[in-house]
Amino acid sequence: MRDVYVAGIGITTFTRLEFALSEIASYASMMALKDAGITEVDQVYVANMGSPRVNHQTALASAVVDSLSLTPAGAAAIENGPASGGSAIKAGFQAVASGMDDVVLVAGVERMREVNGLEATDFIATLTHPIAEYIYGVTLPAHAAMFTRLYMDKYGVTERHLAMVGVKNQNAALNNEWAHLQQEITLEGILDSPEAMTNNPYVAEPLRFFDACPVSDGGAAIILVSEEKAKELGRPLIKLSGVGQATDTHAVHEREEPTDLLAVRKAAADAFAMAGLTPEDVDVAELHDAFTILEIAESEEVGFFPKGEGHIALEKGETALGGKIPINVGGGLKGRGHPVGATGVAQAWEIVTQLRGDGEARQVEDAEVGFTCNFGGFGNNVVCLVFEKEA
Amino acid sequence: MRDVYVAGIGITTFTRLEFALSEIASYASMMALKDAGITEVDQVYVANMGSPRVNHQTALASAVVDSLSLTPAGAAAIENGPASGGSAIKAGFQAVASGMDDVVLVAGVERMREVNGLEATDFIATLTHPIAEYIYGVTLPAHAAMFTRLYMDKYGVTERHLAMVGVKNQNAALNNEWAHLQQEITLEGILDSPEAMTNNPYVAEPLRFFDACPVSDGGAAIILVSEEKAKELGRPLIKLSGVGQATDTHAVHEREEPTDLLAVRKAAADAFAMAGLTPEDVDVAELHDAFTILEIAESEEVGFFPKGEGHIALEKGETALGGKIPINVGGGLKGRGHPVGATGVAQAWEIVTQLRGDGEARQVEDAEVGFTCNFGGFGNNVVCLVFEKEA
Repeated sequence: MRDVYVAGIGITTFTRLEFALSEIASYASMMALKDAGITEVDQVYVANMGSPRVNHQTALASAVVDSLSLTPAGAAAIENGPASGGSAIKAGFQAVASGMDDVVLVAGVERMREVNGLEATDFIATLTHPIAEYIYGVTLPAHAAMFTRLYMDKYGVTERHLAMVGVKNQNAALNNEWAHLQQEITLEGILDSPEAMTNNPYVAEPLRFFDACPVSDGGAAIILVSEEKAKELGRPLIKLSGVGQATDTHAVHEREEPTDLLAVRKAAADAFAMAGLTPEDVDVAELHDAFTILEIAESEEVGFFPKGEGHIALEKGETALGGKIPINVGGGLKGRGHPVGATGVAQAWEIVTQLRGDGEARQVEDAEVGFTCNFGGFGNNVVCLVFEKEA
Repeated sequence: MRDVYVAGIGITTFTRLEFALSEIASYASMMALKDAGITEVDQVYVANMGSPRVNHQTALASAVVDSLSLTPAGAAAIENGPASGGSAIKAGFQAVASGMDDVVLVAGVERMREVNGLEATDFIATLTHPIAEYIYGVTLPAHAAMFTRLYMDKYGVTERHLAMVGVKNQNAALNNEWAHLQQEITLEGILDSPEAMTNNPYVAEPLRFFDACPVSDGGAAIILVSEEKAKELGRPLIKLSGVGQATDTHAVHEREEPTDLLAVRKAAADAFAMAGLTPEDVDVAELHDAFTILEIAESEEVGFFPKGEGHIALEKGETALGGKIPINVGGGLKGRGHPVGATGVAQAWEIVTQLRGDGEARQVEDAEVGFTCNFGGFGNNVVCLVFEKEA
C-alpha cells in the first residue's frame, strides 16, 4: 500500500451562499489546486448528502469536474450522510494507495438554503432508519436529546457542561474567518441570566438552541497525492497516515448500551492502528459536535479520556486551546457550521492548517499529529483519520 | 497494485418492486454473499442515483450494511448518475487493490416507482448540466434524439437500424429470467405495419417508444476480493483486470464534435490498457443502451468497429448471439431494464455469468474475456471494465 499525502487544501466561507452547488465545490477546489500548485488530477470525489433532493441535481461530480475544466479525469460523488466527507477522503486515499491514481481531488459540499425550518429537519432525518425510525417521526435533535438524557443520568453530565462546549466552540470560531458564527456567547447569556431561557430556549429538552450546530452552505477541498508527487510539489509533507471506518446498527434502539458509540470506538482504533499511534500522540483534534453532547461522548470513545470522564476534562479546560488535547479550535460544527457533505473535508482542512502551523490566533503549539472524527447518522457510520507532519 | 477478483454475484428481478430500497439492495447482496460463500466483508459500496429525492432516504449505505448484519464494516454510497454502478465497482476495486480491504461488497440499487411519467423524466434530467441544460428543459430523450439526428445525417443510420437494436435486445431478454421486459417484438410490429405508429409512437423524434429502456426498480451485487481470498473461496477465478473512467464536458453543446463520445473512447482505451488487451480480445460485451442509438455509437467508440460503421455490423448480425462480438445478450438496459444505480453492477453480473459459462440459452460460446461500458449523463461520465476468466 502506497503512502498518501496532502498537497493542497481549500475552503469557502460557511454561511448562506447564493452560488450554485457545483460552483461552491469548485471554489474550494480551486483554492486547493492553487495551494498544491497543480492543474491536473486523476480522479475527483465529491462528498454530498442531499443534492438530488435539495438542489434537484444528480451526477454532481460531472458538474464539478467540468466546472473546474478537469475533464477527462474520473469523477464520482459519495453520499454517506454527515460522514460523506470522511468517506470521500477514504475513497481518495484508496485510489492513491492502490497506485491507480497519483493525484485525487476530494471536495465536500452542501447547499442547504433551499430547505428551511421543518423541511431542513426532515431532510436531515432521512438519514435515520427508514422503517424503524424515520416513519415514526424521529429526528436528529430527538435522537440527540434522548442520548443526552441517558448520558446525564449515567455519567453526571449537566446542562452546564453542554453549554461549556457551546461557548468554547462558538467562541473559537471568532478565530476562524471562514466560520459561520461570528458572535461571542457567554455562559451567563445562554444559561445563567434571566434572559437565558429566551436567548437559548429548549429545542429538544435537555438540548437548547446553542447546543446545536447551524444549518450552513459551504464547501471544502483537499488534494491527496502519492509520496513522489508530494515531494515534487514541495509543500509541507502532511501524511494521511491512518484511516478507519466503522458502522453500528442503523436503528439506535437496537444497541445494547445506547450511550456507547461503538462505531466511533472502532473507527478511531483502526485509524490509530494503521498510523501506529495512540490517542496520547494527538496534538489537535476535530470531533463531530453537531450537538454539544457529541463532543463530550466522542472525546471518550476515540480514547482521549476514559468513558464518562469527558465532561470532567472539559471542566478542567483540557479540551480548549492550550489544554492537553485541544478540540475544535476552529469552531467545530457548532461554530464553523455544518454544510453536511463538506464537514468531513473541513475537519481535514483545519487539521492540515494546524499541522502546517498556519492556525494564527487558534494555532496549537508544536502540532505534529492531528485527528478527525466524522460522525454519520446517530453514530451508525463513522470515519476517523490521522494526519502527521513529517520533518 | 494487488489483483482483484469477483467471488460472488447476485441480482433481483428488474420490474416494479414493492420492497424498501435497502431491502432490494440487500436481496441482491445476500445472493452474492451466498454465491461467494462468505458472511463478512470489509467494506460495502452502494451505487444509487436518487434516493434522497425519490425515496426520501439518505445514509443509504448505513441502511444496507445494517439490513445485511454486516456491521461494523465500512459503508458508503456512490452517486454518479447512470454510471453509479461502474463507479462503485471502481471504488471497490481500489479498496482491494490498495491492500486495505480483502472483501468488498458492491451493490447497485434504484427504486423508481415513486416517480412516474413526467416526474421520472424530470428526475433523470437532473443529471444534465444544471445551468446550461436542465433549467432550459433539456431531457435525456431530447438529448438522445438530437444525437440520433446528427448520427443519421453523418453516418447513414436509419430508423430501421434503431429498431433492429430494439428487437435484438428486447428479445434477448426472453432468455434472461431476471429481465424486466418479457414480451417479444418484431420489426413488422414496431416499424413495418400499419399498426406500428400506434404500437411504437415517436417519443422524441426520430426516437420511438421502443428505442428507450423502461423505468425499472431493481438491485444487483458483486463481491470483489483479493487473489488470496479468491483462491481460498474456490469459485471460478474471474479477474477484474481493467478499469477505465473518463469524463467529457457536462453540457453536450460544448463538445467540438457532438457525435463523438470521447469519454467512452478514453474509458475503454484505459480499461484495455490496464488489462493488456484490445477490443479484438473481447468475447462478450455489455453496452449502455438506454437508447438504441447508444449501442451503435458505443460499439464504435470502445473499438469494436470503426467510427460510423456500427450500424453496418449490426445489419450483418455481428452484435447478436453467435456473431463476432455479441452485445447485450441478456437484454441490455432495453430489455433487462434500467434501475439507474443498479445498471453498472447488473452489466458486471451478466459478464461474470457469461465467463462462468452459466448463460444457458444466452451463453456466448467459449467466452473468456468480457467488457462493460456504463455511460453516465449524456456521455459525460463513463466507466469501462474488462473481466477475464482464468484457467
